[in-house]
Amino acid sequence: MFRTHTCGELRISDVNKQVTLAGWVQRSRKMGGMTFIDLRDRYGITQLVFNEEVDAALCESANRLGREFVIQITGTVNERFSKNTNIPTGDIEIIVSELNVLNAALTPPFTIEDNTDGGDDIRMKYRYLDLRRPSVRKNLELRHKMTIEVRRYLDSQGFIEVETPVLVGSTPEGARDFVVPSRMNPGQFYALPQSPQTLKQLLMVSGFDRYFQIAKCFRDEDLRADRQPEFTQIDCEMSFVEQDDIINLFEGMTKYLFKEIRGVELEGQFQRMAWADAMKYYGSDKPDLRFGMKFVELMDVLQGHGFSVFDNAAYIGGICAEGAAHYTRKQLDALTEFVKRPQIGAKGMVYARIEEDGTVKSSVDKFYTQEVLQKMKEAFGAKPGDLILILSGDDAMKTRKQLCELRLEMGNQLGLRDKNTFACLWVVDFPMFEWSEQENRLMAMHHPFTHPKDEDIDLLDTDPAAVRADAYDMVINGVEVGGGSIRIHDPKLQAKMFEILGFTPEKAEEQFGFLMNAFKYGAPPHGGLAYGLDRWVSLFAGLDSIRDCIAFPKNNSGRDVMLDAPAALDPSQLDELNLIVDIKE
Amino acid sequence: MFRTHTCGELRISDVNKQVTLAGWVQRSRKMGGMTFIDLRDRYGITQLVFNEEVDAALCESANRLGREFVIQITGTVNERFSKNTNIPTGDIEIIVSELNVLNAALTPPFTIEDNTDGGDDIRMKYRYLDLRRPSVRKNLELRHKMTIEVRRYLDSQGFIEVETPVLVGSTPEGARDFVVPSRMNPGQFYALPQSPQTLKQLLMVSGFDRYFQIAKCFRDEDLRADRQPEFTQIDCEMSFVEQDDIINLFEGMTKYLFKEIRGVELEGQFQRMAWADAMKYYGSDKPDLRFGMKFVELMDVLQGHGFSVFDNAAYIGGICAEGAAHYTRKQLDALTEFVKRPQIGAKGMVYARIEEDGTVKSSVDKFYTQEVLQKMKEAFGAKPGDLILILSGDDAMKTRKQLCELRLEMGNQLGLRDKNTFACLWVVDFPMFEWSEQENRLMAMHHPFTHPKDEDIDLLDTDPAAVRADAYDMVINGVEVGGGSIRIHDPKLQAKMFEILGFTPEKAEEQFGFLMNAFKYGAPPHGGLAYGLDRWVSLFAGLDSIRDCIAFPKNNSGRDVMLDAPAALDPSQLDELNLIVDIKE
Repeated sequence: MFRTHTCGELRISDVNKQVTLAGWVQRSRKMGGMTFIDLRDRYGITQLVFNEEVDAALCESANRLGREFVIQITGTVNERFSKNTNIPTGDIEIIVSELNVLNAALTPPFTIEDNTDGGDDIRMKYRYLDLRRPSVRKNLELRHKMTIEVRRYLDSQGFIEVETPVLVGSTPEGARDFVVPSRMNPGQFYALPQSPQTLKQLLMVSGFDRYFQIAKCFRDEDLRADRQPEFTQIDCEMSFVEQDDIINLFEGMTKYLFKEIRGVELEGQFQRMAWADAMKYYGSDKPDLRFGMKFVELMDVLQGHGFSVFDNAAYIGGICAEGAAHYTRKQLDALTEFVKRPQIGAKGMVYARIEEDGTVKSSVDKFYTQEVLQKMKEAFGAKPGDLILILSGDDAMKTRKQLCELRLEMGNQLGLRDKNTFACLWVVDFPMFEWSEQENRLMAMHHPFTHPKDEDIDLLDTDPAAVRADAYDMVINGVEVGGGSIRIHDPKLQAKMFEILGFTPEKAEEQFGFLMNAFKYGAPPHGGLAYGLDRWVSLFAGLDSIRDCIAFPKNNSGRDVMLDAPAALDPSQLDELNLIVDIKE
Repeated sequence: MFRTHTCGELRISDVNKQVTLAGWVQRSRKMGGMTFIDLRDRYGITQLVFNEEVDAALCESANRLGREFVIQITGTVNERFSKNTNIPTGDIEIIVSELNVLNAALTPPFTIEDNTDGGDDIRMKYRYLDLRRPSVRKNLELRHKMTIEVRRYLDSQGFIEVETPVLVGSTPEGARDFVVPSRMNPGQFYALPQSPQTLKQLLMVSGFDRYFQIAKCFRDEDLRADRQPEFTQIDCEMSFVEQDDIINLFEGMTKYLFKEIRGVELEGQFQRMAWADAMKYYGSDKPDLRFGMKFVELMDVLQGHGFSVFDNAAYIGGICAEGAAHYTRKQLDALTEFVKRPQIGAKGMVYARIEEDGTVKSSVDKFYTQEVLQKMKEAFGAKPGDLILILSGDDAMKTRKQLCELRLEMGNQLGLRDKNTFACLWVVDFPMFEWSEQENRLMAMHHPFTHPKDEDIDLLDTDPAAVRADAYDMVINGVEVGGGSIRIHDPKLQAKMFEILGFTPEKAEEQFGFLMNAFKYGAPPHGGLAYGLDRWVSLFAGLDSIRDCIAFPKNNSGRDVMLDAPAALDPSQLDELNLIVDIKE
């Protein structure tokens, strides 16, 4: 060992001990004949002291140390004269008697501090230096702790972690697969799994009963913000269960994690909200319930009074921002601009303030009598000092989504989205199908193995679009952290599902035959869910992006700029793989 | 929930309870008016009873159930008349009152029992049925438990699990990489990691101090028996440590695992054996120390007596098999045939029995006096009743390897390799380099970042082939379960190493510049090791192959016969990837 203690370990009770420490030079400063060095390792920072009068040569060596040099020192623990209450080792310092430079260091391209001067690009290129910053390291420590606790909980509930293969076959539906050419099987390719979905269902057929895996998944999608081509899933599946069993068990896990990791006790059952209600009242299948501003629909109240925008709308709805009547015209104009941005796409915004005397003053006063406006006020339950914001449009769903953006923006502006407050809910009763304009057919909203709700099975023949599924998402603070479904285990029901999805029996056999065949040998009723680990960790860490809870993330072009990957292959390698690269201009 | 209890749970104390169980029909038998069904799930087997006299219709339904049907039953727990002491639920049975068929099953293509009639190929094709067999499932349960305990131990020692990426850059040395074409970066490829070696070294540069990961690794090698293209490694790295620190810590982990998983207390320190001694005394860098038969070299004793085979040999050595003098001529001839097989390649074998009276009777008596043979006996410390087996050859190392095979075979024949006895050791002081006939240069035996032993650094200039490394393997029962090394952190030493390995500075920069560059920013002294999880689990499970501790293994052609992967791609997919398949005839 190069050390007797770490840099985060020594306390006042260690005074007079002879110790050896090793670490990185965080900073050094000369004060008169004294040189002070902050020595850093993963565990903390300890102050080293060199005294010119006592040992000039040693002090001179210390003065030559640059930032991020790796050193080993031996010395005596001393009580500090002026203590530093900001760090746990702040009561002591080390009077150094021996200094050993283990490795020199070039000056790092950015400062290794929580508030660094390094931009995103340079931090990613030198990610190994970026990871020295305590804030980044803490995210990865949190990630470690989270996976330890997830495993502890699931193990205690009888789940077995089973590793499923990474080199698998291509799956027909969903996003694009990454593929891997096989040298031993010329012209053939493996695929990297988008998720262990089919394999975990096979494990249920195998009788594994309770499976989980913290699994790497891969999607070759055009990367949007905050997507990674490889990501990590907490993947779970259970047999002989119904939806409530899964929801209860994973609600338990969530509470356990909140308690162990964040020290937060979540009381009572999580709210459960039907998908239709989530859309109706929040315009989103992942509503942020840290704050109110539930949508109020105003068709009855505001249509038919001569304001053509509303009179011709398919939907009129609004939110009430409590105590926001003080918003200035300028602020309101900015909100209007916000909803009119192309990403949101509203045509305009109507607002109304509730005055001190209870009267309503709106931007459309010329069309509405105070009587109508009072009815509107009542619909919101608004009080003096509140601000009502209204959107309308000719497509109810689209307008709701616009209103959702406005609601979230108001939540931000009013400070209602505190990162240390957590609102958890289950969104349930998702529609089984959604209509695809592109494919001109119904598509499975979740996947084709999702079980319809028993009470809706009759609708499969008469009104498939109205069928709801035994599918559920867990939403925390407006982030979908996980989701899953009960799966179909009845071959006849599965066949009907394929029919509705427009598969001929032959095509269903070709694409899903492998799983369907397994199901013929005794499939138990089963269901499961998967959590996005990256997303959940960043939520717990209070991060805006998943990138900083991933050790070596890729950028928006799917590149690892540190490793400089991907890269061109050696021609001999391509040759061995029986491949020719043919780039179209 | 489809059940109140599992099939492994009910005991005599539950008698008269009303219960609901769900599971698979293991077997059914009719005895008079009674039908007995063994209901199986992951947790065990419970006997169900249907009585024709009590409910003829229900009994009739039960009679129609086939093997592997999935059923749910409700009934009353009853004390069995004739108890089955072989299973924990053997004291009770369930008098069934309700039967619900959850899913029918085709007759499985092989019997779902520990002793199955299914061959390897059919078991792999229907792996989801094979996994129902308790013996296979237990291996995966053991694997789960092992990873849980490994994580528990390493977490308790301050290690952080960090996920490193699966889509990385190609590494220059070692086995072939699997590659992944990037659609977003036309003509460029990711590689799948052969191990997280460079990334874990970067984490040390980042100050992570103690890292581990249970990581998937990939090698596109021609598969020998018991190799898989993807395998799992317990990968570890530590900073500010010397070889002994790593050995001590992981010896601690090994003892912990033996205790927690096998209930075996390993006493004292593991033996540490220099590589040179392992080769000299056991002809192997992974000696099986469950038994003796240490090699004895006999050049001094047996050369120069007119037996030309020995007189012209570069090496003569033998083993003494205690109490095996009873071996018949036929058995000895079979051993001679064994060592002469092309896989082993010895020219012949000499044997000698120690008679009751202490005289030695050998197959080469006409060349040797009893006096010489007695000297030989003393060299072995042989006793009456022992059998001495001797090989010779013109290449000492090759002959030792042949003698190693003979020793292991004798260990098998004499029952000295009990799967429930464990002999752990560290093989240390590996040579730094080995000569490659193919490349006509010294190659790194471990990898180019391995640290030479301090006391041998001077030899780098004068006799590099004699330099030993700070490299170590953990060997259990003749299986290398893990290995690692201290890494070089001094850029000057690393440059010298590349020089010896025949790299120009330019080539070294091109291939390893990325890691070397990181090292310029303050690399701590560090080292680590990696365990092969698959191999370790199969050792604990007493398996001869790693395949049965892997849920979905690949065959010797790298195929997953269940998934039918790899497979040809859709032309449009190739097109998107800018690839043309070009198979040479």
